[in-house]
Amino acid sequence: MNVNGRHYRTIWIDPDDRCVVKIIDQRFLPYRFVIADIRSVAEMVTAIKDMHVRGAGLIGAAAGYGMYLAVLEASQNADFDLQLEGFSRQLIEARPTAVNLAWAVQRQISALAAEEHLSTKLHTALTVATRIADEDADWCQRIGQHGVALIEKIAGQKSNQPVNILTHCNAGWLAFVDYGSATAPIYEAFERGIPVHVWVDETRPRNQGARLTAWELAEHGIPHTIITDNTGGHLMQHGMVDLVITGTDRTTRTGDVANKIGTYLKALAAKDNGIPFYVALPSSTFDWTIRDGIRDIPIEQRDPNEVRYMDGLAGNVETQILLTPESSPACNYAFDVTPSRLISGLITERGICSADEDAILQLFPEQR
Amino acid sequence: MNVNGRHYRTIWIDPDDRCVVKIIDQRFLPYRFVIADIRSVAEMVTAIKDMHVRGAGLIGAAAGYGMYLAVLEASQNADFDLQLEGFSRQLIEARPTAVNLAWAVQRQISALAAEEHLSTKLHTALTVATRIADEDADWCQRIGQHGVALIEKIAGQKSNQPVNILTHCNAGWLAFVDYGSATAPIYEAFERGIPVHVWVDETRPRNQGARLTAWELAEHGIPHTIITDNTGGHLMQHGMVDLVITGTDRTTRTGDVANKIGTYLKALAAKDNGIPFYVALPSSTFDWTIRDGIRDIPIEQRDPNEVRYMDGLAGNVETQILLTPESSPACNYAFDVTPSRLISGLITERGICSADEDAILQLFPEQR
Repeated sequence: MNVNGRHYRTIWIDPDDRCVVKIIDQRFLPYRFVIADIRSVAEMVTAIKDMHVRGAGLIGAAAGYGMYLAVLEASQNADFDLQLEGFSRQLIEARPTAVNLAWAVQRQISALAAEEHLSTKLHTALTVATRIADEDADWCQRIGQHGVALIEKIAGQKSNQPVNILTHCNAGWLAFVDYGSATAPIYEAFERGIPVHVWVDETRPRNQGARLTAWELAEHGIPHTIITDNTGGHLMQHGMVDLVITGTDRTTRTGDVANKIGTYLKALAAKDNGIPFYVALPSSTFDWTIRDGIRDIPIEQRDPNEVRYMDGLAGNVETQILLTPESSPACNYAFDVTPSRLISGLITERGICSADEDAILQLFPEQR
Repeated sequence: MNVNGRHYRTIWIDPDDRCVVKIIDQRFLPYRFVIADIRSVAEMVTAIKDMHVRGAGLIGAAAGYGMYLAVLEASQNADFDLQLEGFSRQLIEARPTAVNLAWAVQRQISALAAEEHLSTKLHTALTVATRIADEDADWCQRIGQHGVALIEKIAGQKSNQPVNILTHCNAGWLAFVDYGSATAPIYEAFERGIPVHVWVDETRPRNQGARLTAWELAEHGIPHTIITDNTGGHLMQHGMVDLVITGTDRTTRTGDVANKIGTYLKALAAKDNGIPFYVALPSSTFDWTIRDGIRDIPIEQRDPNEVRYMDGLAGNVETQILLTPESSPACNYAFDVTPSRLISGLITERGICSADEDAILQLFPEQR
């Protein structure tokens, strides 16, 4: 999508030095647009763990490129296989909830196992990394083309009033390689001239909504309003939300969805007020091996200081402030699980389906 | 309750100068404990509007003392009645959602109407203001004595494991004159040696949970953990919450509750997980005139910059930071309404009852 009128992806190979992966370092948004160089697996693991890059699709793509860097590094070492295995593990373990990480690493491992020589392995790793990124962008674009039908239908009933869409966290293009998942139908609607307005949950503790989603939408010229995470229920009670679309970091084969903490609360409010609640995802986000999201999806606990402190701009200076009494402890679960019964449907690259196993497997019969 | 081991109320008459009302200026907590002088109605209106004092009971008490200051000021003027009427209106209009404000002002007006002479009016105004404050403290203490039974019962089933209580915003002693409403049963349990642990919702945008409730509990030595407002649902799904207790700013005669924005979302999650959800309130918080909370309780909209900016400590300096893109708008509803069907019961100074009109009127038959 566009930044200052110029098209960007969130991650790419440096055209001038193919040993360098370029990322938008998202820690500095919305205040500064910073492009960073990643030159080693260790740097990529740090970028994923400390959320220089984040979001389901993007950390999958980052893991894909990370495996390319892993082959580059391991090829300079005696025990290639042992080192590659170590790098794979480090990448997978960088964050525990998102399934795209393991999915991308596994895809590289399978492809690399079919190659015998180092030189072809290197070529394969770059090809697969590029394909993962291209597919992610392509799938997100298709999600937009399928999902826009939901917005079009509501618009048809509103006689040119904007369709009000609530989203939580950032499942925008910054969370993927391009387009985003939850935002893809919104961008598509905007392109088609359908009037839309987005309620942006700020998404504590890391404020990905207020910092990233708002910035994305502002850069693209899409009308939006930032709200606290507490506000969505009130808006829904008063008819101010027509549709909720969120992303997901891991989706079971039965349609349970792990997404940023607080998503479950919005799903409950949507259900209570009869408002459609959709989850948008490329199929890379499915974990086909599990059925019970609340029981089986591991939920990442992050540093409590992400709750106790907050970053922002004081004047023009990026500043961190303490929000709580010095002695009070905090805890920081990063995700929660929304059970499928609260979800109106899943928007995938192959179309929209109900959040239940039969409907999901009709779209993805190869997973039966 | 205690601050640094010394007992305080949140508001009182200066014993050395009975024309001055003293308040704890809560804007500076938890970083600084500031006591401020209020010398006029205008100052009291500002203190209420800009939340130097806040919370259902406390703004009732502040309005009571504000009317005493109003009599003091109006008595120096030719047209006493006209001026008093103006002051009454300014106090009532300082904040729109909390009913205690109008309740306290009306109580003063009725008492003053019975007095003919200025000197007795002044005496009456001080007496009524003091009575409102004393009653508030007394009622909150009774709420604690009734509500502790809920905690005791759960403790009996947990074999000495702490009872985990979640609360939203600050319905602690800082929101009243003393003891608090939601916190009163917790303080009472603590006094009785029942092990408790409190999940403190930070309560965006003004962070009354992270700033005030956490500070109160820390000063009193009660174990607690600060969480983002997004977290409660996840905790409830995993058996980490035994009981929710919140306060309320206005309660209909049918048991609908207006409380800090986000309360409704926690009530939905409690219902979905079979966790008891109680609302604690002195009866001054009832609005006996209305039946449908969602339709009829006016919801205050505050400055959007309360969402876009946040205050905290950078090093040792109180600092405000911008959280959002400069150009992104925000909106700031201060309260939402939790319908009675989601509420397990109301804890009042006269006992606990279901959140329905019959049960409420059994406790308050004078309102039939």
